[in-house]
Amino acid sequence: MTTPPNKGTLYLVPTPLDFGCDTSVPIADVLPQATLRVASGLTHWITENAKSTRAFLKRVSEFAPLGLALQDMQITELPREVHKKGDHLGEFDAKPLLALVLKGQDIGLVSEAGMPAVADPGSSVVMAAHQLGIRVAPLVGPVSLLLALAASGLNGQNFAFVGYLPQDSAARLQRIRELEMLVMKTGQTQLFIETPYRNKALWEALLKGLQPNTRVARASGLTLQNMDVQCYAVRDWRQSNGIGDTPTVFAIGR
Amino acid sequence: MTTPPNKGTLYLVPTPLDFGCDTSVPIADVLPQATLRVASGLTHWITENAKSTRAFLKRVSEFAPLGLALQDMQITELPREVHKKGDHLGEFDAKPLLALVLKGQDIGLVSEAGMPAVADPGSSVVMAAHQLGIRVAPLVGPVSLLLALAASGLNGQNFAFVGYLPQDSAARLQRIRELEMLVMKTGQTQLFIETPYRNKALWEALLKGLQPNTRVARASGLTLQNMDVQCYAVRDWRQSNGIGDTPTVFAIGR
Repeated sequence: MTTPPNKGTLYLVPTPLDFGCDTSVPIADVLPQATLRVASGLTHWITENAKSTRAFLKRVSEFAPLGLALQDMQITELPREVHKKGDHLGEFDAKPLLALVLKGQDIGLVSEAGMPAVADPGSSVVMAAHQLGIRVAPLVGPVSLLLALAASGLNGQNFAFVGYLPQDSAARLQRIRELEMLVMKTGQTQLFIETPYRNKALWEALLKGLQPNTRVARASGLTLQNMDVQCYAVRDWRQSNGIGDTPTVFAIGR
Repeated sequence: MTTPPNKGTLYLVPTPLDFGCDTSVPIADVLPQATLRVASGLTHWITENAKSTRAFLKRVSEFAPLGLALQDMQITELPREVHKKGDHLGEFDAKPLLALVLKGQDIGLVSEAGMPAVADPGSSVVMAAHQLGIRVAPLVGPVSLLLALAASGLNGQNFAFVGYLPQDSAARLQRIRELEMLVMKTGQTQLFIETPYRNKALWEALLKGLQPNTRVARASGLTLQNMDVQCYAVRDWRQSNGIGDTPTVFAIGR
C-alpha cells in the first residue's frame, strides 16, 4: 500500500443517479459492496450539498450501520462559487478542508449524483490531496457519462465530454456545428449535458442544426426504471421521439 | 419501459479491472447487485475473449447461480479484425450476432476488463442493436478511465480520452506536444492509455516532453490492492517515482 504513514485517505464516493428522487432502485443495485462498506464507515464528508448527503447516508445505513449517528457526522459543504464556476481553475484552495486528514482522519468526497469531480465539483479537493501527499481512492459506482457513451454505440476509443452548451440559441447553434466539425475531422465522439428543463430546446437545436448523416445519441434515466438510450443518424430520428425533462446525456458522433 | 415487444435486451456488462489476475478483490466489491443478478441470468454472450468470459462467469456464479451450466452457454467472440482496428468505423456488421435477440433472447456484451465499448471493442454491436430497435441497457461497474479522471483532480468538466499514443518516439513526442497545446488552449484534460510493458517509455517521454507547469496524472491498479493515483506538475515529479507494468491510465491537464 502507498498510504503515507499517519495520514488519512480521501475516498471519492459515487452516489446513485436518481438524485434521491427515485429510491425504488435499491442502493446496492448501483453501488458495489466495497463502496457501501467504505461509505458506511466514514464520519467526515466534503460535499456539494449536506442535505442530499444526509439522505444518501440514510440509504447507506439500510445496508450497513453507519460509523456515527447522522447528526454527529461532520459534513462540510463546498462554497457556492465552486458550484457555479467549477473548481478546476485553481482559484479555490481546498487544503484547509483536509486539515484533519493530515492527522489521520479518513474523509469522503461526494456530489449530488454520480462520481464527484466528474461533470461535478470536487476536483479542487482531489488536487489539494495530491499536493498534501494524501492518498486518493476512487470507489466504483454509476457514472452517467460513461454509461451513456457505452450504450450509444458511438466511438468509445476517442471521445470528449464538453460540459454544457451555450443557452443563447445562436451561440448554441454555433457550438453544435463546431462540435460536429470536430466529429467529422477526428472521429471523436462529443458528449454534453443540459439542465433537464432545457432538454427540449437543446434536442430541437441538435436535430435542426446537424447534418443528416451525423449520429445523435441521447441517454435518459440511466440506471433507473425508465432508462432509455437511443442513437440514430439525424435523418432517422422521428418527430414522435419527444424528449422529457429527466436528466439526459447527449452525444454526437459518426 | 421502452422495450419493444417480443425483442430481447442487449445488456452491457462491466467486468472487474483485474483481468482475472488478482482475484483477491471479491467480485461483489466492484460489481453491484443488479449487475451480478443480470449477469448470472444471461445465457448468451458476445465477447472479446470466450476464455476470460468463462472465468468471469465462474466468479459471478459464486454470488448467484448461473442460468445455465457454463459449458451450455452460447459465447460468441467478436472477430479478430474488430479487436485490432476497433469496430467503430462501420466496417463490421454486427447485426447477424443479434438474430436471436430479435426473437426475444436477452444477450450480454462483455470485454476483458471494465465497460465494453469504452476503450474496448463492442460499439459495433451496440450500434447494430439501435438499428434493429433492440433495447440497450448499460449496467454499473468499474470504468478505469473515469476512476482515473476523478482521482486525478484534473478538470472533470471538460475532458477527452484519445486512446493510445504513437509508438515511434518522434511521433509520440509530437503527439504529446499536440495534446499539451490542446490542454493549454482549451483547458480540456487529455486522457490516454498504453500497453503496460510500454508504460516506462511513455512515462519518460511525458516528463521529458511536457512543459514544467503542465500537470500529469497516472492511475495504476485501479480498484485493486496496489492502487496508486498521483498527480503533480511535471517539475514536481521526482526521478524516484518509477513506474511499473500494471495497467495505467495517464492524463495531462492544467
